[in-house]
Amino acid sequence: MKNGKHFTFKFTAVSPQFPNSYRVLLKEEVMKHSGKHAPVPTFLEHVIDHFGFLENGTFKQRFLLNDKHWHQKNNPILFYTGNEGDITWFCNNTGFMWDVAEELGAMLIFAEHRYYGESLPFGDESYSNASYLNYLTSEQALADFARLIENLKESISGAQNSPVIAIGGSYGGMLSAWLRMKYPSVVIGALAASAPIWQFTDMVPCGDFYKIVTQDFANSGINCSKNIRRSWMAVNNVSSTDEGLQWLYKEFGLCSPLKEEDVGGFKGWLQETWVNLAMVDYPYEANFLQPLPRWPIKVVCSHLQFDTGVSDKQLLHGIAQAVKVYYNYTGTAVCLNISQTATGSLGIRGWFYQACTEMVMPMCTDGIQDMFEPQVWNFQAFSDECYEIFGVRPREHWAGTVYGGKNIGSHSNIIFSNGGLDPWMSGGVTKNFSDSLVAIMIPDGAHHLDLRYNNQYDPQTVIRARALEVQYFKNWIKHSTIT
Amino acid sequence: MKNGKHFTFKFTAVSPQFPNSYRVLLKEEVMKHSGKHAPVPTFLEHVIDHFGFLENGTFKQRFLLNDKHWHQKNNPILFYTGNEGDITWFCNNTGFMWDVAEELGAMLIFAEHRYYGESLPFGDESYSNASYLNYLTSEQALADFARLIENLKESISGAQNSPVIAIGGSYGGMLSAWLRMKYPSVVIGALAASAPIWQFTDMVPCGDFYKIVTQDFANSGINCSKNIRRSWMAVNNVSSTDEGLQWLYKEFGLCSPLKEEDVGGFKGWLQETWVNLAMVDYPYEANFLQPLPRWPIKVVCSHLQFDTGVSDKQLLHGIAQAVKVYYNYTGTAVCLNISQTATGSLGIRGWFYQACTEMVMPMCTDGIQDMFEPQVWNFQAFSDECYEIFGVRPREHWAGTVYGGKNIGSHSNIIFSNGGLDPWMSGGVTKNFSDSLVAIMIPDGAHHLDLRYNNQYDPQTVIRARALEVQYFKNWIKHSTIT
Repeated sequence: MKNGKHFTFKFTAVSPQFPNSYRVLLKEEVMKHSGKHAPVPTFLEHVIDHFGFLENGTFKQRFLLNDKHWHQKNNPILFYTGNEGDITWFCNNTGFMWDVAEELGAMLIFAEHRYYGESLPFGDESYSNASYLNYLTSEQALADFARLIENLKESISGAQNSPVIAIGGSYGGMLSAWLRMKYPSVVIGALAASAPIWQFTDMVPCGDFYKIVTQDFANSGINCSKNIRRSWMAVNNVSSTDEGLQWLYKEFGLCSPLKEEDVGGFKGWLQETWVNLAMVDYPYEANFLQPLPRWPIKVVCSHLQFDTGVSDKQLLHGIAQAVKVYYNYTGTAVCLNISQTATGSLGIRGWFYQACTEMVMPMCTDGIQDMFEPQVWNFQAFSDECYEIFGVRPREHWAGTVYGGKNIGSHSNIIFSNGGLDPWMSGGVTKNFSDSLVAIMIPDGAHHLDLRYNNQYDPQTVIRARALEVQYFKNWIKHSTIT
Repeated sequence: MKNGKHFTFKFTAVSPQFPNSYRVLLKEEVMKHSGKHAPVPTFLEHVIDHFGFLENGTFKQRFLLNDKHWHQKNNPILFYTGNEGDITWFCNNTGFMWDVAEELGAMLIFAEHRYYGESLPFGDESYSNASYLNYLTSEQALADFARLIENLKESISGAQNSPVIAIGGSYGGMLSAWLRMKYPSVVIGALAASAPIWQFTDMVPCGDFYKIVTQDFANSGINCSKNIRRSWMAVNNVSSTDEGLQWLYKEFGLCSPLKEEDVGGFKGWLQETWVNLAMVDYPYEANFLQPLPRWPIKVVCSHLQFDTGVSDKQLLHGIAQAVKVYYNYTGTAVCLNISQTATGSLGIRGWFYQACTEMVMPMCTDGIQDMFEPQVWNFQAFSDECYEIFGVRPREHWAGTVYGGKNIGSHSNIIFSNGGLDPWMSGGVTKNFSDSLVAIMIPDGAHHLDLRYNNQYDPQTVIRARALEVQYFKNWIKHSTIT
């Protein structure tokens, strides 16, 4: 299996989470809800292949459990459907569950997704070849979750009739929605926060994602998106000479000198930075992907206000300042590493594999409605790249078939929450289907802001969204205990 | 892989269909709805493994299509979810669909289940080893159906918005219900006829199946079930001498002399015969599993009326006469072959494999509430036998997890029809969950009588059941076109 070097650009922009950023996770933070009720990591043994019987090996799925507020028999369970990374990180970044646990008297479970964190079906070898990777699919992960829930309800005294609600954000939110769709016997409902379940072939226009990124910058400062749009040509111009390459290296404070062949990767890295900022444009200082100031895009844009008359180097000086808001807010970064997302953690590799199989999310840019260099979506080229790296080819329409595409109206008890600043809203469900299949909009929210801890700077829209979500939970719980 | 010789007893009794009986199918009968609208066999290419990406081979699924009555754009499609056998046989035995096609202006599709008939993922080698068999699961079959429906709707002009209703009987009925549960985006509803979706571990008592068989015989003639209950000991007694074995061989007209070690198999064959009769106890002459008279159990029981005073050989003479009603109604059988179900067609082998993996259906007898020799359900022994034959072990609780067990109340638009004479009613859904998740009882119906052609001898109960089913179809169709 080759490394993902040439893969950087295409993938980093489409990953709903950023497993490579787990480095910023302080695992100790998990313990802040400490005392004897801190989440206890536990494991459940699963078959590696739920859908075939030849491979009868097993592995241990990790999950975290907290029952501090779960004092009564049949009280509810909030179940986080882990996404592409270490579950302690998600546990730590889903303050909403901690905030509402007391009100609902709920047990909290955070379940790790197979092939991530410590839930590795073939241990350290899990990513070593295509046959070991073969069981990394969303369907297998959902089956793990379903079995885990059944097992917990059987084994925890008093939990047998506890209603379970699935909660997740981003890919984890997709999994929450799909868990309710595919295993309604195990969860009475789901909160799918910023879950782009329609970011698949033929469901939404491929350009919407980058349009939203662009709008975020356009709305955060005068000339901001215009200057980013102009920056690509400026990079091309400046990097066309050795002197220019050297200048870029110094101006951006890169960790290694920039070579001619790195320019594509450099632009990809910039593009990903803007995307990341759009996702984490939170109204307060936060440390989700990086430590960042409140409303980070506003700060970024403060470096990009010049008018058209500016020179390429002046423009790129601004870009460098802007990028450093993201990579060096704390002032402790020694240098910036443009291959940072390519070196990849397990998480990144896993998501690459998922994108190369089921999670085919077409993205495109035109440079007109968005601030990026034009790039068409080319499934065949994408497929060839996947084959080269993993020896598998993506199935363009499978996610639509297996999860129902836009035809999901027969399902019930799913909340799709969407942030108006979040590029992933492009693939989200933004309209109500029925009384119990609903969309909640958070106009000034970025990527699953509603799942974060309450904060004094929370806009009213997210406060209302959370209250509404809890109201739905209570309604589901009430009806589940009646029938 | 060993042959299934010692496997005969346990499996034949639990197979909802009888693929070994395909020999009685006159394929030409399919053509009776002839002219240019006869069902045309067509094929769709699928990946062999929908749930993994390493195996990227493909195979062709066969389906039959008839559009004689489908004249209008957006008219409905009735989709038969094929079970464990040649699809032409199911096509031929599902007269209900042909009978209602005109009234509904419906297109008919009969889709073959992978690994049966001509839909063999690895051609003639499909059953040759455990790794080829690995893709024979209900989940893979459902994915085939979902893809086929999507493909047909895209490729047939005017069908893009056609509502599709899944219809199936027995295991095919389970698949219809599960298709609606798992892929509600592709079918607006399902008729699951005589579908034992609860015949799994911990869902229903393991003895109910054979109790119903026994009741059928008890209600069809005086002393009938009592004499069958007595017959096992009589077989034991008579077969304990060489003379007795020879006598049994001649009395039953067996194809080969009976040896001491065959006695268990002989009793298993008798037991299966009674089960089969219970399933096909139709009110008119029919040729589903065998050519049979109307109300065949009545005819069988006419040979088993004696009182307790009778000798073992007199009793077994009656049993032999009774058995021949099933095996030789036409008078053309040269001899009776007790290993008939063990030699197996592809269908039988496939169902054995499915029973040895997902379709674990516990069965037991006590000889008191039923007329059979007592036999407890022993999962471990069953599992060991499966491992010996196929190299795989069944997963006792998987079907319950993946298909929701008894907790199916959140689904909609499924009709579960049950025959009161049908032993498979033991595992069927026999109560309404909601207005759109309903059970229909046909007290004097055997195994999916409602799916058969209209017949002058049809009892009122099945006539009413069919009318109600069509009413539900129309209601689903009406609502599907509004939204």
